[in-house]
Amino acid sequence: MKAWNLISLAEARRLAIDALAAAPRQTEQVGLRQALGRIAACDMVNTEDNPAFDRSTVDGYAVRSEDLAPASATSPATLRLVGEVRMGRGYGEKISTGEAVRIPTGGMLPDGADAVLMQEYTAAGPAGTVLAGRSVVRRENMVVRGDDVTAGAVLLAAGSKIGVPDLGVLASCGFACVPVIKKPVVTVVTTGDEIIPPESTPLPGQIRDVNSFTLAALAELAGCEVIQAERVADSQEGLTAVLQAALATSDLILVSGGSSVGDRDYTTVAVESLPGAKTLFHGVALKPGKPTLLAMVGHTALFGIPGHTVAAMTVFHEIVKPALAARQGMSVDDGHFVIQARLGTELRPDAERDEIFRVRLEQTESGVIAWPLPAKSGLVTVMTRAHGMIYLPAGHTKLQAGDPVDVQLLVERLGGNWQGRVR
Amino acid sequence: MKAWNLISLAEARRLAIDALAAAPRQTEQVGLRQALGRIAACDMVNTEDNPAFDRSTVDGYAVRSEDLAPASATSPATLRLVGEVRMGRGYGEKISTGEAVRIPTGGMLPDGADAVLMQEYTAAGPAGTVLAGRSVVRRENMVVRGDDVTAGAVLLAAGSKIGVPDLGVLASCGFACVPVIKKPVVTVVTTGDEIIPPESTPLPGQIRDVNSFTLAALAELAGCEVIQAERVADSQEGLTAVLQAALATSDLILVSGGSSVGDRDYTTVAVESLPGAKTLFHGVALKPGKPTLLAMVGHTALFGIPGHTVAAMTVFHEIVKPALAARQGMSVDDGHFVIQARLGTELRPDAERDEIFRVRLEQTESGVIAWPLPAKSGLVTVMTRAHGMIYLPAGHTKLQAGDPVDVQLLVERLGGNWQGRVR
Repeated sequence: MKAWNLISLAEARRLAIDALAAAPRQTEQVGLRQALGRIAACDMVNTEDNPAFDRSTVDGYAVRSEDLAPASATSPATLRLVGEVRMGRGYGEKISTGEAVRIPTGGMLPDGADAVLMQEYTAAGPAGTVLAGRSVVRRENMVVRGDDVTAGAVLLAAGSKIGVPDLGVLASCGFACVPVIKKPVVTVVTTGDEIIPPESTPLPGQIRDVNSFTLAALAELAGCEVIQAERVADSQEGLTAVLQAALATSDLILVSGGSSVGDRDYTTVAVESLPGAKTLFHGVALKPGKPTLLAMVGHTALFGIPGHTVAAMTVFHEIVKPALAARQGMSVDDGHFVIQARLGTELRPDAERDEIFRVRLEQTESGVIAWPLPAKSGLVTVMTRAHGMIYLPAGHTKLQAGDPVDVQLLVERLGGNWQGRVR
Repeated sequence: MKAWNLISLAEARRLAIDALAAAPRQTEQVGLRQALGRIAACDMVNTEDNPAFDRSTVDGYAVRSEDLAPASATSPATLRLVGEVRMGRGYGEKISTGEAVRIPTGGMLPDGADAVLMQEYTAAGPAGTVLAGRSVVRRENMVVRGDDVTAGAVLLAAGSKIGVPDLGVLASCGFACVPVIKKPVVTVVTTGDEIIPPESTPLPGQIRDVNSFTLAALAELAGCEVIQAERVADSQEGLTAVLQAALATSDLILVSGGSSVGDRDYTTVAVESLPGAKTLFHGVALKPGKPTLLAMVGHTALFGIPGHTVAAMTVFHEIVKPALAARQGMSVDDGHFVIQARLGTELRPDAERDEIFRVRLEQTESGVIAWPLPAKSGLVTVMTRAHGMIYLPAGHTKLQAGDPVDVQLLVERLGGNWQGRVR
């Protein structure tokens, strides 16, 4: 059996990020309605002051604040009512000393007006006048041209993920289309003689394919277009053929299983036999996740991912996801969200490998408790019980129950699964 | 001007949830690859033990643990090597006292074996034998039939949102299809004479449509199929026609703007003129968000949403989203995620209305600080600066800088936006 040449998780992640960040990125234009969750391909620069005009934030009267300086409820000022602002139109004339113009919420202030008096503080006066029952300060009840965002401001930096509020800002600043990074195409390949599709009934010794579904879903959540390849039996020729076909269409290939160093582990030899393949690492000092492989063929990245379900998801989170963020030019890895909790039980770190523990969180009066889940290999349901992950470096001192730990939340689990409060 | 008859936020939310929970739900079957993020329409019950057989978790030898009781590195036990387990197949024969069978990780244990000895602790012995250099306890290095999930267990309860790990569990238990709730169809209608599409250049007094993009995106994230209707000018006839057309196809209609009580606020009259319309509330004691309306026409819900951008998003979060969760039979509102922080400045609650403040979070040595953002009406960029929301009930005592507050995270902003740590 070939010996391992393990590198640290940090090193593996760095190699993967650097290799994928170096690949050229393609961009495309999408309509605003399609831009949610996409990555901005360039800085989006505002071209005009927004709002483009001074605007009332209430229903009332556009006035000159100096006219109302002496006004009060007991001694109202009398203003000449000279007109009304219509929504969506300019008023057209400048107002002069002692004049007021009726204005609706959102209406454009007439020239000459510098504040709005709320309807509530007014009353009808003698014919053609309105009584102002209080004073206003300059710019009261209005937003000023450019208040929201000025011309030349960067609305969204290149590499940002476009969220709901960003869509609103882009719409308000006149961007009906957005240049975004083309979604990386990811092909997911599952190997293993024992693997059958979910719809089949297992014969003795057979198990159903899990990883091609979880890896495909994770890649989708990471912003990729996913192709789920046919399952491949354990043979170098079969796997090589599938990989060669995938190379033509994919930015990234995830091969689940076969990346260890056993007799039946054909992934490594198949990958390395591809013309131009350059192996960046094979074997990571990570528990679970040791049999992880990364090779580049041109700009396409081939990851060998452990067959064990929990290990596969762990490697995706720790190495593939940040690399995919780099592939898309993202300014930061997406959805990396850490809370602090206290350990529910002691935890013994591994002497030689960094370790990722899945934990279940429990909200108590005194804070959040993190309960490490049993790491028995290949149990699928552990995943559904986990709320987050704890990272423990190799050789760390033993942790006691009650010790503080950082928990990285599994965001793909947040939806409807943990309603706890983080204190 | 018509007077308001305000109800509390809690009451409005309850009315909305109850009305939408009562609407009949349609279900559909989707393939596992399409099930991510969908809502399970019924309990998914496991039909068979998983794994279906005892399985090795290491490369090594399937043995009878009692045979190895006296074995040690200095005094190894000698076992007869009688065969080899192939991946994906049963071994076929029962092993007897003193026998061992070579087995790969994931291989099915032969009858008679009750543990696996790792390869590392073995050596080749005299012809046809293997030397065992340590003892094993019963069930060591293996998972037992049903260890993961037993037959009859509920894999996923009706109303659960299907996450990545759930896909894995469903695949491993043989569900290639999943019955899910049909996505509610939401039509978004924007009203206002002053509103123009993003691609147009505003004339004086005009502003670009924001809400139909943010509301559509929020509805999509809440699991809906969204139809973005044409913008409608402020006229009762025009709006009524659009609403009547939308009623035929929609489970929910969101009308942005025109739901206040001013002269130009046609939404209320248009909604109330629809045959069979039953207004559940009009006016919520919420800041921002007062001009909010809910009417039912049959099982279709019509929401009047404030035109102000921040108010519109607030009302969506506080009222529409929980109602949409109820509409889909979800066991919990999705992605409701609360952390505790300390206020950066004092906060004066409103005497009469519940108030939602948008806050920006800052991570400091001593914890998370929440900075309330200026609430000036209609500023769009406030949304992009906010990480979360604080709820302050009407008439609450004034909060001081440093006071602890609960912050509901804006999950549609989490992606790549806040890399802070919550302590």
